[in-house]
Amino acid sequence: MTKLKNDLLLRAAKGENVERIPVWMMRQAGRVLPEYRAVRAKTNNFIEFVKNPELAAEVTIQPVDIFGVDAAIIFSDILVIPEAMGLPYQMVESKGPWFENTIKTKTDIDKLIVCQGDTIDYVNQAISLTKKQLDNRVPLIGFAGAPWTILAYMVEGSGSKTFSKAKKFLYTEPVLAHLLLEKITQSTINYLKGQIAVGADLIQLFDSWAGVLSPQQYGEFALRYIRQICEAITEVPTTVFAKGAFFALEEMSKLPCSALGLDWNTDADWARKQVGPNITLQGNLDPCLLYADFDTIKTETEKMLTEFGTQRYIANLGHGLYPDIEKEKAKFFVETVKGFGV
Amino acid sequence: MTKLKNDLLLRAAKGENVERIPVWMMRQAGRVLPEYRAVRAKTNNFIEFVKNPELAAEVTIQPVDIFGVDAAIIFSDILVIPEAMGLPYQMVESKGPWFENTIKTKTDIDKLIVCQGDTIDYVNQAISLTKKQLDNRVPLIGFAGAPWTILAYMVEGSGSKTFSKAKKFLYTEPVLAHLLLEKITQSTINYLKGQIAVGADLIQLFDSWAGVLSPQQYGEFALRYIRQICEAITEVPTTVFAKGAFFALEEMSKLPCSALGLDWNTDADWARKQVGPNITLQGNLDPCLLYADFDTIKTETEKMLTEFGTQRYIANLGHGLYPDIEKEKAKFFVETVKGFGV
Repeated sequence: MTKLKNDLLLRAAKGENVERIPVWMMRQAGRVLPEYRAVRAKTNNFIEFVKNPELAAEVTIQPVDIFGVDAAIIFSDILVIPEAMGLPYQMVESKGPWFENTIKTKTDIDKLIVCQGDTIDYVNQAISLTKKQLDNRVPLIGFAGAPWTILAYMVEGSGSKTFSKAKKFLYTEPVLAHLLLEKITQSTINYLKGQIAVGADLIQLFDSWAGVLSPQQYGEFALRYIRQICEAITEVPTTVFAKGAFFALEEMSKLPCSALGLDWNTDADWARKQVGPNITLQGNLDPCLLYADFDTIKTETEKMLTEFGTQRYIANLGHGLYPDIEKEKAKFFVETVKGFGV
Repeated sequence: MTKLKNDLLLRAAKGENVERIPVWMMRQAGRVLPEYRAVRAKTNNFIEFVKNPELAAEVTIQPVDIFGVDAAIIFSDILVIPEAMGLPYQMVESKGPWFENTIKTKTDIDKLIVCQGDTIDYVNQAISLTKKQLDNRVPLIGFAGAPWTILAYMVEGSGSKTFSKAKKFLYTEPVLAHLLLEKITQSTINYLKGQIAVGADLIQLFDSWAGVLSPQQYGEFALRYIRQICEAITEVPTTVFAKGAFFALEEMSKLPCSALGLDWNTDADWARKQVGPNITLQGNLDPCLLYADFDTIKTETEKMLTEFGTQRYIANLGHGLYPDIEKEKAKFFVETVKGFGV
């Protein structure tokens, strides 16, 4: 394996000394870029796009070229896991994912398969291709949804403000919920090990719907499975981003992971006090700040960097880029981080 | 003014001694009750329903009769304020509110009127009627949306997962945002004083979209206007419920209000440590818990009551009742609280 030319992200994740703060942006490969939209237009639908390794590799690398970020993140979707387990979905324009079948009974769960490392082969192919084309310029991040978030979609069948159907399942069918979570967890571990085998340099887990659970349910139905994944992934650093789970932050600092992602609700000093000095923090600029003028973006970004400090820290947004953010503003955010204190 | 037969809620709000914990439920007058649905069916649409004082009074009192709660809350909608200011809305079935016109410019803001105490007369009529029919059995809660949440709808034009349009307005047009917030705040103060004049015994402010703002924006665009309202409302106790604003809880304990509402993400001990002993806490059972069996509801409710303690506390849910929760489960929650430690 050839050495990475820029390994700032990996060093920051591991707590090694860095000469400047590394930076990337959630959803950096996305509609903010006209270059992305041009590639996207070559396919009929989002899922077809995700399943095309050549196109996925192309849009994965775009933000490295265009924004100059310190990492690429493989272009894919957290819902490839439910699909591979046997629950296909559609991506409905401006509405989000929709599953024709949802999980209701033990029979539904029994029918699901456990993914192996090569089950979702198109992602592995996309990673291999990206690694080759990246030519070790920056690390490549692999990812998966955290088990609770995947269960939430498999039971709810779509996005939701409350995920009350999925939460009802936890309260009324806790045994089935654990059975399903175990199957998702095992699939996810195998899937991530597959990604690592073909070259992913760091793994990020997205618990997008952490914030709808109570602290007690989060511990019982989410955190214990995240822990299993973190324990299993020993080959590369792992980042856990649980959106809205401020209440679990202290507990999450005990996970065997390298870094924790923070949303924009979370104050830097408060977060550092919760987690202690031995874990890297990642985040957390409000993506809406990139609607502001350049001066405001610079001032607020530098304020954030000052608060988090230059070590044990990875600059990012507190959520994915929104599609209508101007490309130049996103780029300016990256440049502001890269120019900070240098 | 005749004395209330049951003033537990008011005493708990003021920090006076109570012989048992008072309880009510957000959205207790709602679709959970077949009795509500029967009244609702008498009108063509939700807004017509809200504007009918007789029907509003009827459904306001239903939960007192059926659930035995310790307070009624006037049946209305937080969006009556934007409408009265000049921005009408529609309630689209299973989609939520939708505004044909939204606020974009200074001209749009200049055109808005400031509500007086009698502008939204149908709410005052509904309160008068309810007070009369309640016959002092329990206190009647009046309410309004907090200014940031009202601005969010007026700018976004509908509900949203991110409210990115409204947040963009704060970042790009801060002067206009403050102008609009001042107008909303003045309207809200007048509106609430009108409610108090006709009999509201306690006021609750709902900041439903607090959780989409960063701590800094919350301080600048939300909390300062909530403070103005709390300072102006001196006649009756005030409760502030800012959903998702865990990051501001300590700061909120310095508001001149009687009580703070908590969502179900918030741990009781943690909240009490944030706010100190001199403010009443209200909440915060996960409404989805009411999907569980009776034993679980009892166990978890009593656990919550034990954590919050019997004084300086009002039992409630951490969010409104969901429409598909069984009436008997909601009733059982109320009975569990009323039977606790008695």
